[in-house]
Amino acid sequence: MSTADTETADAFLGGRLILHQPRTGYRAGADPVLLAAAVTARPGQSVLDLGCGAGAAMFCLAARVPGLEMHGLEVQHLYAALAERNAARNGIAATIHRGDLSAMPATLRAMRFDHVISNPPYHDRGTGTPSTHPPRETAFGESLPLADWVALGARRLQPRGTMSVIQKADRLPDLITAMATALGSIRIRPIQPREGRPASLVIVQAIKGGRSPARLDPPLVLHTAPLHQTDNGDLSGAARSILRDGAPLL
Amino acid sequence: MSTADTETADAFLGGRLILHQPRTGYRAGADPVLLAAAVTARPGQSVLDLGCGAGAAMFCLAARVPGLEMHGLEVQHLYAALAERNAARNGIAATIHRGDLSAMPATLRAMRFDHVISNPPYHDRGTGTPSTHPPRETAFGESLPLADWVALGARRLQPRGTMSVIQKADRLPDLITAMATALGSIRIRPIQPREGRPASLVIVQAIKGGRSPARLDPPLVLHTAPLHQTDNGDLSGAARSILRDGAPLL
Repeated sequence: MSTADTETADAFLGGRLILHQPRTGYRAGADPVLLAAAVTARPGQSVLDLGCGAGAAMFCLAARVPGLEMHGLEVQHLYAALAERNAARNGIAATIHRGDLSAMPATLRAMRFDHVISNPPYHDRGTGTPSTHPPRETAFGESLPLADWVALGARRLQPRGTMSVIQKADRLPDLITAMATALGSIRIRPIQPREGRPASLVIVQAIKGGRSPARLDPPLVLHTAPLHQTDNGDLSGAARSILRDGAPLL
Repeated sequence: MSTADTETADAFLGGRLILHQPRTGYRAGADPVLLAAAVTARPGQSVLDLGCGAGAAMFCLAARVPGLEMHGLEVQHLYAALAERNAARNGIAATIHRGDLSAMPATLRAMRFDHVISNPPYHDRGTGTPSTHPPRETAFGESLPLADWVALGARRLQPRGTMSVIQKADRLPDLITAMATALGSIRIRPIQPREGRPASLVIVQAIKGGRSPARLDPPLVLHTAPLHQTDNGDLSGAARSILRDGAPLL
């Protein structure tokens, strides 16, 4: 098979970013773009993307904020290699570390970051049905509990560093408990598919050593039409700014 | 002093309910009305209001759902006596138990309820300044941690019974962690003062033995005007239905 058979090249941020992704298995959609939009990184700061996959979240963030020192950790070699190619293709400097979250490479364990971002696997292995496609299973399934994912990420933060995690909204209790155990100054951003519907996703952010009161933000509403007509045809103004124009999620 | 000097008689639910309250100290506002609106009680079911105060939440619920078996627990005799007088004045059958949450009367410990509702003290004693007014301090201050409040309430539930708690939004991490420890099928309802503003309050509900995925609802927005002009003059349609017409919070 040629690469063209097994990969696609997909436009993100209105074409500012082109990402190669496997045709089957885990493929980035809007979620890592939303995650990147929520990170309040300043030029010159360092960022670690835990489980970076092909790099969608870290490269979307790099496209918005110049001069970031970017690191990604990815256990699957297929995705780590894609992330390296995607960095080169988009002219982004990034170091991709190969390794498991629970057994990080020593180089990474010696580092501290201003921001840790992550889009951990969505499916709780206690309830769902495992995928028959192995790379997809590793990306979606949860070999490591979400609490460990958060705790291991928090250890890689500088004092006052921020961790940002996107998850399905139904994991909010687990996620918030984990974040509140390891970090402080928690901020919750619900993402609703439409006005008046329950949140489908949440981004939870927290600060290492933070002591501010928790904050529950108004939801970001993704779509405007009452029914989901096309994948992207009815994006709300706020969602369009983020997904197409690379605007921050305020 | 006559009673008129120390008490007020306040209209709730558009006048359907008149509650006597102390002129100073803890006074019920919109919060217990919102809590009552969120409880999906059916006629004939039993309800326990933990820390019922003068009875605003339980009597608002009784005004919407007929034929409930109502019980309140209140440690302060001033409020317990008011709750009994308010029940009589509004023609609502209710049993008010006097006692501390952490040392409930034996009669109450022998009972199990379909619904436990609570509007626990809002101030975390670790951070705030204690009130100099003792009854106000007991109602607002937090002698018992929120986690104990939830755990003790959960024990009073029948299997499949629901617990509903309203709190300031900045306590959501503590509240959700406590609810997730003791109960399941968590549902979070943010309450925003206005469109586009962070939530000021949250109602968290959970089911004893529940195993459904957690759900984060769209916010209830209380006010429509961009600035808070009067206390109630700019209520949103949804808030007006709940606070004035006794509608449920769907």
